[in-house]
Amino acid sequence: MNPTGLLIVYTGNGKGKTTAACGTLLRALGHGLRATTIQFLKGKWSTGERRYAESNELEWHVMGRGFTWESQELKADKQRVRDAWQLAAEKILSGAYDLVILDEINYALHYGYLSCDELLEVMKQRPDGMHVVMTGRNAPEALVEAADLVTEMREVKHPYKKGIAAQKGIDY
Amino acid sequence: MNPTGLLIVYTGNGKGKTTAACGTLLRALGHGLRATTIQFLKGKWSTGERRYAESNELEWHVMGRGFTWESQELKADKQRVRDAWQLAAEKILSGAYDLVILDEINYALHYGYLSCDELLEVMKQRPDGMHVVMTGRNAPEALVEAADLVTEMREVKHPYKKGIAAQKGIDY
Repeated sequence: MNPTGLLIVYTGNGKGKTTAACGTLLRALGHGLRATTIQFLKGKWSTGERRYAESNELEWHVMGRGFTWESQELKADKQRVRDAWQLAAEKILSGAYDLVILDEINYALHYGYLSCDELLEVMKQRPDGMHVVMTGRNAPEALVEAADLVTEMREVKHPYKKGIAAQKGIDY
Repeated sequence: MNPTGLLIVYTGNGKGKTTAACGTLLRALGHGLRATTIQFLKGKWSTGERRYAESNELEWHVMGRGFTWESQELKADKQRVRDAWQLAAEKILSGAYDLVILDEINYALHYGYLSCDELLEVMKQRPDGMHVVMTGRNAPEALVEAADLVTEMREVKHPYKKGIAAQKGIDY
């Protein structure tokens, strides 16, 4: 019995967090679950996952601006996070989904653009059986506390450190 | 420049290894890469990823028997690993793929059903630009040495420990 579904957090400094969220999406779609993805940070490339979502008519929202936030645009960035979170909360409370992916939301929490209390309050109200996947480095302790499943993707070895560029279809 | 593609290893005791491999598949498909997946262990359920592959006509090979190997059937299990590896080697050397996923192959290496030397010899001969993703706990040190990207999925928290059952669309 798990009436409330799982709160899943993928964090850590290693590769595989957004990738695992995409894998959860594929797995969920295989079982016919209703899913939506909201990206809190936009990659600098046209990502494979986004292209896949578009060509397969999956629901996919890119709300963030760049790959990292820059201090010059703090106010605009905060507003983007607020907009993304408002959309996320609507989706979560709508009852229309079995799986909601909040990609890179941990950044927003870590930087204080969104409070854990506010997030967890919405999570508590979500429909029974809804799973939520949250990704990004530096998941706050309160989120780890509240989550059902937390994996730290620990970097053992990363090709960028050998000077190998990001690979299409693998890294983005 | 990365003429030989990436050797990627997802290991560790946490959730997200096969999930990340599935996410890599989705991302690669979004970019139109040619991919195949070979599962060295068969889950006890009809997995979402397998169902997804079937309904989307993706190439997907389930070669293993059960979720764990049992000593009673050692010889048959070894043969299954050999068959899976033979298929994998053919696929890798065929030149017909940009991405090959060898799911749970690390178990086969760890249990000595397949030698790292034999695996790495084939990897060296693979076509330029081909990426290979290998998953499973206990990736041997020689594989970690040879790989370009290694992430350890570290279990921080797992719902099974709270007595929550595996969830359809999330865990399988």
